[in-house]
Amino acid sequence: MLLFKYWKDTNDKYGLPKNSLQSPCQFLNLFWVASVVFMAKCLKLGIIMKILDTVNNPQDLKKIKKENLPILAEEIREEIINTISKNGGHLASSLGVVDLTIAMHYVFNCPNDKIIWDVGHQSYAHKILTERKTKFKTIRTHNGLSGFPKRYESEYDAFGAGHSSTSISAALGFAIARDLKKEDHKIVAVIGDGSMTGGLAFEGLQNAGHLKKDMLVILNDNEMFISQKVGAVAGYFAKLLTAGMARKVEEKIVKTISRFHGFGSPIRKFIKRVKVMLFPGMLFEEMGFTYIGPIQGHDIKNLTIVLENIIDMKGPVLLHAITKKGKGYAPAEEDPVKFHGVGKFDVETGSTVKNETITYTKVFSDTLIKLANADKKIVAITAAMSEGTGLGKFAENFPDRYFDVGIAEEHAVTFAAAMAAAGMKPVCAIYSTFMQRAIDNVIHDVALQNLPVVFALDRAGFVGEDGETHHGVFDLSYLNYIPNLVIMSPSNENELQRMLKTALNANKPCVIRYPKGDVGIKVNISTHTLQIGKATILREGNDICFLAIGNHVDTCLKSAELLAIKNIDASVVNMRFIKPLDSDTINEMLSKTKKFITVEENSLIGGFGERVRSFLYGSGAIVESIGLPDKFIEHGSLKVLRKKYGLTAEDIVKKALKLLDHTQRKEENNFGINI
Amino acid sequence: MLLFKYWKDTNDKYGLPKNSLQSPCQFLNLFWVASVVFMAKCLKLGIIMKILDTVNNPQDLKKIKKENLPILAEEIREEIINTISKNGGHLASSLGVVDLTIAMHYVFNCPNDKIIWDVGHQSYAHKILTERKTKFKTIRTHNGLSGFPKRYESEYDAFGAGHSSTSISAALGFAIARDLKKEDHKIVAVIGDGSMTGGLAFEGLQNAGHLKKDMLVILNDNEMFISQKVGAVAGYFAKLLTAGMARKVEEKIVKTISRFHGFGSPIRKFIKRVKVMLFPGMLFEEMGFTYIGPIQGHDIKNLTIVLENIIDMKGPVLLHAITKKGKGYAPAEEDPVKFHGVGKFDVETGSTVKNETITYTKVFSDTLIKLANADKKIVAITAAMSEGTGLGKFAENFPDRYFDVGIAEEHAVTFAAAMAAAGMKPVCAIYSTFMQRAIDNVIHDVALQNLPVVFALDRAGFVGEDGETHHGVFDLSYLNYIPNLVIMSPSNENELQRMLKTALNANKPCVIRYPKGDVGIKVNISTHTLQIGKATILREGNDICFLAIGNHVDTCLKSAELLAIKNIDASVVNMRFIKPLDSDTINEMLSKTKKFITVEENSLIGGFGERVRSFLYGSGAIVESIGLPDKFIEHGSLKVLRKKYGLTAEDIVKKALKLLDHTQRKEENNFGINI
Repeated sequence: MLLFKYWKDTNDKYGLPKNSLQSPCQFLNLFWVASVVFMAKCLKLGIIMKILDTVNNPQDLKKIKKENLPILAEEIREEIINTISKNGGHLASSLGVVDLTIAMHYVFNCPNDKIIWDVGHQSYAHKILTERKTKFKTIRTHNGLSGFPKRYESEYDAFGAGHSSTSISAALGFAIARDLKKEDHKIVAVIGDGSMTGGLAFEGLQNAGHLKKDMLVILNDNEMFISQKVGAVAGYFAKLLTAGMARKVEEKIVKTISRFHGFGSPIRKFIKRVKVMLFPGMLFEEMGFTYIGPIQGHDIKNLTIVLENIIDMKGPVLLHAITKKGKGYAPAEEDPVKFHGVGKFDVETGSTVKNETITYTKVFSDTLIKLANADKKIVAITAAMSEGTGLGKFAENFPDRYFDVGIAEEHAVTFAAAMAAAGMKPVCAIYSTFMQRAIDNVIHDVALQNLPVVFALDRAGFVGEDGETHHGVFDLSYLNYIPNLVIMSPSNENELQRMLKTALNANKPCVIRYPKGDVGIKVNISTHTLQIGKATILREGNDICFLAIGNHVDTCLKSAELLAIKNIDASVVNMRFIKPLDSDTINEMLSKTKKFITVEENSLIGGFGERVRSFLYGSGAIVESIGLPDKFIEHGSLKVLRKKYGLTAEDIVKKALKLLDHTQRKEENNFGINI
Repeated sequence: MLLFKYWKDTNDKYGLPKNSLQSPCQFLNLFWVASVVFMAKCLKLGIIMKILDTVNNPQDLKKIKKENLPILAEEIREEIINTISKNGGHLASSLGVVDLTIAMHYVFNCPNDKIIWDVGHQSYAHKILTERKTKFKTIRTHNGLSGFPKRYESEYDAFGAGHSSTSISAALGFAIARDLKKEDHKIVAVIGDGSMTGGLAFEGLQNAGHLKKDMLVILNDNEMFISQKVGAVAGYFAKLLTAGMARKVEEKIVKTISRFHGFGSPIRKFIKRVKVMLFPGMLFEEMGFTYIGPIQGHDIKNLTIVLENIIDMKGPVLLHAITKKGKGYAPAEEDPVKFHGVGKFDVETGSTVKNETITYTKVFSDTLIKLANADKKIVAITAAMSEGTGLGKFAENFPDRYFDVGIAEEHAVTFAAAMAAAGMKPVCAIYSTFMQRAIDNVIHDVALQNLPVVFALDRAGFVGEDGETHHGVFDLSYLNYIPNLVIMSPSNENELQRMLKTALNANKPCVIRYPKGDVGIKVNISTHTLQIGKATILREGNDICFLAIGNHVDTCLKSAELLAIKNIDASVVNMRFIKPLDSDTINEMLSKTKKFITVEENSLIGGFGERVRSFLYGSGAIVESIGLPDKFIEHGSLKVLRKKYGLTAEDIVKKALKLLDHTQRKEENNFGINI
């Protein structure tokens, strides 16, 4: 009886056919199942080694019997769940492709063959299987593994990612290079259905379909975004096709009818149309791809068979695999949105540590709802970041005035511009790093026409563990030069509310940039609009003046307090607006001191400090700018990064003391103040 | 006999059915044709008014009888051809949509209804028909009409354009706003098949198909890019559909079968599939559009009928019209590429004034071919700008190593990045203004991975008559802050050659920005590579120092000569590299003079001058930066614009004299050099 229960559990777990016991060799089958279960139990008790212990790279993987791959998948899932429960990360998407990853590395020969991950947050199993198993525990920690593929991290990471929809273009680039160099290897792009909504993916598909190079695109469809429910017929034909038979038949027919000049072409077209009609991948077939699928994306054995069958197919092939986000971990399967990007959580219960602090995102969300209640013209737009940008609640309140356009930042901005042209008040909430995708739309559609679109740039500054590809440290630089824009940055909860109201009443394009994390100091609530381009002096002192923006106003206030202990009297100005810059206030400060420190969490090149230096050029003021150096910033916690890049109150104090000391010595040496 | 010839000519000209004379009312027909011809003759002789003379706006247009619209079309074409032969402009595309434009304004009620032109270079007939007929002669001249739709120019220009693929997103924005405001008007986007290749168009289609708002997209298909040759069946069904009958039948069937629960849905799907099979617009149908077409885009009468039939259709509709670029002007029909964007030409012969000067584009083209002959790893990529970027010749020489990816700048860059990752040496030639589309790809795919892609940024600086949307005056600002990039700008032919060679050997991402127009001064040819980040001192003097880049090195040399007449001794440094900046050379100059002038044809914010000021901050040097103000620059000839924005040698001399005078007075007044 116990054995039967084991058999049933295992059967369910590994998705074995329900009728296994009714097969002719049912006893053998039963024996095999019992062995698997026994081994699994031994593994848990630590009596025998895990299969994963024997696998360091894809070469090791190939030595494992196909029937044992599901066990390996479970071990990898366990490893991922345990590590991410401590480090946080993209759990749901990574669990969803464990089986696919194993099947790919089983069939392909990496690093010679190239696997290109779209976005890349699903590459955890890939990292474990490609010589990074022991380092996996360091993932997303400072100096540890990155949460995304990185060329500098491993030769198995053919092409880095972080932003969406790049993989098909990249795969095509690799395919062209391979053929020009007369090399012979396989190229696979793995792209989710969400990423497929990005225009870049369409551009890549279109060009790949045109160039007809041998390459495989695996559409990892985990939300049924593109595919509708598909019938049995399509499934049957897909299997036939992958076995190569149907393909050969089709080729033969085409070859035969080609002989009949004049008639051949329409018949071929008709056959193509009929084929297309039977399959759900019309869109891809139309674009020049051979479409295969949909197939179940968790049946490893079948996946390996399909991949082995199609590995040598000519031209661009799209394999449509249906997977489940969070597969193998019940809490993530139930709530894939929560477990998309997750912080620390309890493995047993799936419960996460509740964050009690109020974030800028939440303040933005609440305020927008409040304002939208009073003004029907307000509409909100997100590019597939409903939860991240806090617009989920807006959507519940105003379903007709809320637009999630998919991972399509360019469209989001131009769409918003037109709504503004038609008299609405669109608020476009996009992460700073993703807005890099839509700069031309900001220039060409919004700013040039001076249209009142409000951009809510969340995650400006460091984002922490997601690292290089996700930090929002360029936005001031890529926005500052755009005419007609107003750029502001709130230093606290209250100011974000006021800025949002100000922006919605400005009747011109406005950007509000605010960081990840909580709102810092609380102040009395006022919802009056702000005067555009007007800074506010928070502390007056004649020794040195801090000009700060956003969350670093708070840091500077702390620095000023620390300096006060040393009897140094510092001014702190909350600049509020990066563009237009408040020249009056800066001049006012200049009448008190010639020593300035600017602080920002943006690249120094083209950022806030450089604007101040440009304004103060020739004024005799000494300006020390604190911000980010001319390099890509690695991943790490916000705390670690701010310490490393000198953005803490203590670091600023040091800089101030050095500046004061330096200036004093210069003055004593009578060199003049400005050398 | 003469009458018969008139009839035949007219018949051919206006595409009247060949069998007109065989109809029952052939004599009446003949009489009508004769009248048309007679009137046309009278018009030419100035005996009677042109129809166009009676038309100032769409309301006037509606008073004209349908059968006279082809005459109006011819008059408008004449107006366009004559004007563009003098002013230059986008002739072929504008001639191609004259009939469509008339039909649209005949059926729709603008400005209440909104017509949104994609790219907008085809909007000449639209401008003539919407209260800008008398101003049309000023098109593309300074202070004259713009060559593109502009909201500030006319309420008939619902949404401005210049860059490609924005119209569908914009139309959707207008549709959403209309419905939220409970207004009732029509929205039409007109997009070419080229623009349809841009990812943004796909994003817009996808979102529009999903949101199901009433809007019309007219696919102006003039190169058969998307459509294959289409059979009679499709044409017949299209006509049926537009008449509303087939649509009603289909709706009835769907309604009937919906009653059979369980079976209804698959049958409906099957019907949809069959319908899709019969029509060539599968891609659009799949995305949620009702596809109608293809229809002939020059039969005005039929166009008006089709538009009248579909004007009240629900949901998003795509009308596929086949047009001919250059229609109605033989030289342009024969060579639409030459007449896409054309300078002055002779109306009778179509011959253009040969430009004998050597352009940067040509030097780039020739050099790349030379280098590619010696290095098989070099590949070239363009985003539908084969001729404009000079890559046409490369394509002829190396068809396998040349890639025109369509209007898909984002894909072009990521595709190039992957080729570089795979060991090739990709050269991506994109206009400065269009590169705004691919900034994230430069950051995320190229620079972050430090991949050796060479960007050839043509049309950097002013482009002249195309104006606001096309000037390349932001590139230094949107590139300067990107880590790992090398940015250079050649001052002459020889330097462009050397820079291209340098970039191809740098093993890191390099940008070469060069302007429209000729190469300026000639120097001895050397093809040695340059030292990265090293400037060159062209003239030494101790009174003032010019730091210049690109084509303004030449301007500064002239300024220095003018100053020499006044016994002022100026240095001129050709900086060559904007990033990395040659701090050693700047310091060297600083030892000679404290007076600097920087010159660039880029926005001053985030540009070259600001980089120099940031470096020289606190050095005691006075730096006057000459460049472009914080505004969008209007259209006008290069000469007019350079004069207006102070970029001529004489302007620079004035600035230098003012600086010298100012400094001298300051020194005399003992205020110190740096206040």
